[in-house]
Amino acid sequence: MDPVVDVHAHALPLPLLEGLERDGLADLSDLPRGVLRLAPQLSGLAAGAPIPLPPEQYEVSARRAAMAATGVTRQLVSAPPFVFGSLCPDDALVLEVTRRSNDALAAHVAGSGGALLGLGTVPVGLPGAADELTRCLDELRLAGAAIGTFGGGRELDDPVNEELWATLAARRCFTLLHPSRASAPERLAGFHLVQLLGYPAETALAATRLVLGGVLDRHDLVLCLVHGGGCLPAALPRLDLGWERKPVARTSAAPPSRYLRRFFLDTAVFDAVALHRLVADAGADRVLLGTDFPFDLADRDPVGTVDALGLSPADRAAVLGATAIRLLGATVR
Amino acid sequence: MDPVVDVHAHALPLPLLEGLERDGLADLSDLPRGVLRLAPQLSGLAAGAPIPLPPEQYEVSARRAAMAATGVTRQLVSAPPFVFGSLCPDDALVLEVTRRSNDALAAHVAGSGGALLGLGTVPVGLPGAADELTRCLDELRLAGAAIGTFGGGRELDDPVNEELWATLAARRCFTLLHPSRASAPERLAGFHLVQLLGYPAETALAATRLVLGGVLDRHDLVLCLVHGGGCLPAALPRLDLGWERKPVARTSAAPPSRYLRRFFLDTAVFDAVALHRLVADAGADRVLLGTDFPFDLADRDPVGTVDALGLSPADRAAVLGATAIRLLGATVR
Repeated sequence: MDPVVDVHAHALPLPLLEGLERDGLADLSDLPRGVLRLAPQLSGLAAGAPIPLPPEQYEVSARRAAMAATGVTRQLVSAPPFVFGSLCPDDALVLEVTRRSNDALAAHVAGSGGALLGLGTVPVGLPGAADELTRCLDELRLAGAAIGTFGGGRELDDPVNEELWATLAARRCFTLLHPSRASAPERLAGFHLVQLLGYPAETALAATRLVLGGVLDRHDLVLCLVHGGGCLPAALPRLDLGWERKPVARTSAAPPSRYLRRFFLDTAVFDAVALHRLVADAGADRVLLGTDFPFDLADRDPVGTVDALGLSPADRAAVLGATAIRLLGATVR
Repeated sequence: MDPVVDVHAHALPLPLLEGLERDGLADLSDLPRGVLRLAPQLSGLAAGAPIPLPPEQYEVSARRAAMAATGVTRQLVSAPPFVFGSLCPDDALVLEVTRRSNDALAAHVAGSGGALLGLGTVPVGLPGAADELTRCLDELRLAGAAIGTFGGGRELDDPVNEELWATLAARRCFTLLHPSRASAPERLAGFHLVQLLGYPAETALAATRLVLGGVLDRHDLVLCLVHGGGCLPAALPRLDLGWERKPVARTSAAPPSRYLRRFFLDTAVFDAVALHRLVADAGADRVLLGTDFPFDLADRDPVGTVDALGLSPADRAAVLGATAIRLLGATVR
């Protein structure tokens, strides 16, 4: 059977959450109703804001049942951005929570019988990020990294991240870039707009800064953008026009649209036409199965999503899992 | 000859700018070098930020020469958002500048020999907005309206705008919705990102609030989104998913994607494939020629842009100008 690898799935091991609760950073009293609450300084959310926490987030057995039901043979799990601390002003707290999160994730996937691989959280924007990446890969034996779109008060193209990019590139580390904040959340109040609009815009901003900030010219990264790159593909023609006509926006070696194929992009775009266009633009070799499991807004039939594209058998196998397996290399047995 | 109508073009009549300079709100000392500076409280830009001001912004003869060179027979001109005062806390100042802007625009188009039609600025978010709209249409004989994406400290779906929406609908008023601010401009510093990324995201946010805020369920507007709707089309599948699964986002009568054809969308998307997809999604009867003339990032060959679509003769004529003429109705002779 062809491997079916979901590169965009989340996990929140209970030992992490229980430790956070002991420190006053989490409230697990509504766990039986599937709700988690986190301290605002960590989550960036309002005090008391409910975060869905179905058992699949922390119980391997429940997760494996859901995977079996949808034909997913392997999941790359990463912490959701609520524990990234992207807007937290306390760098030491962010590093401490990140380390505990990675320790817990490593233990969680170690108990999954090979069904799960972990992507360690790397705290972008903080001077210790590259060290934590090395620890994740060498000590915790995690399969890759997950990074947010902001951290330490700095955008991704800030020089503070140069050592991190160099280390990710040298290790050929599979890295999931996940929105971890939204611009102007007060304007996104209501209608779930932080996630529905803020996150896709955030991915476009982060990816654009990697392009126009020259990061992708300096470093050959293995970087996957969630949700098909969010608004990035739609923004590329205008970014190209800016590159052509505005000297201040001509800072990359080539027009921004030429960088689309420097990213990998997941399939969680929730529309067959949109996904078809994404594959046409980026190439089937650049699209990876992703779901956002087990959140409410996940793709619940990822294999069906790919099958609806009518790809050639080789391209179908690539999107479903073969490319992901190739990128993960020696970490997958 | 088929009419070729550019619905998205800007004008800044000199009498307006000279009046603003007398009041300390504009600096025209660099006019010979094609640069305007506006007071930050009006423009929302940094103090001293240069705004391109080529002669085509204020000289009808220069504009008509450019129109003739590109085959545009008529332009709907509107003030650029730098004089909308969208972030200005002084409501009285915003209303005063808006009135002067509309007076100057009316005089400007009256001297154009029929080549130009004016879209009056309507100050969304302010209680006097509907009155100014009525004045624009009845006294100034302007052809329609232009609105920003924010005003008076309020988003477009704020109840303060209900009277304006009702009046726009009752008048069947052609209304251009133009981004007039960007979320978190400090994150868009460098690379011209306020315009390249902030504006397309802004149009998506404004249009989404009109949909999910129920404005389009309550009012039948004739609303054109610039730049092909910015990021709105790309965001619709995720908005639909939210509508399906999150009660807080199920506030419109139908899924958000069903509202795409409730908007008109201009052709200024700067990519043949992207425009082809826009026409496929929204329909040729919902796409109108638009350029952003005379700014640097304008479509400089709008007829060529439409011709590249390979539309049927009837659809080509509709996009080039027939639909715009129909929407403008009695205001066009």
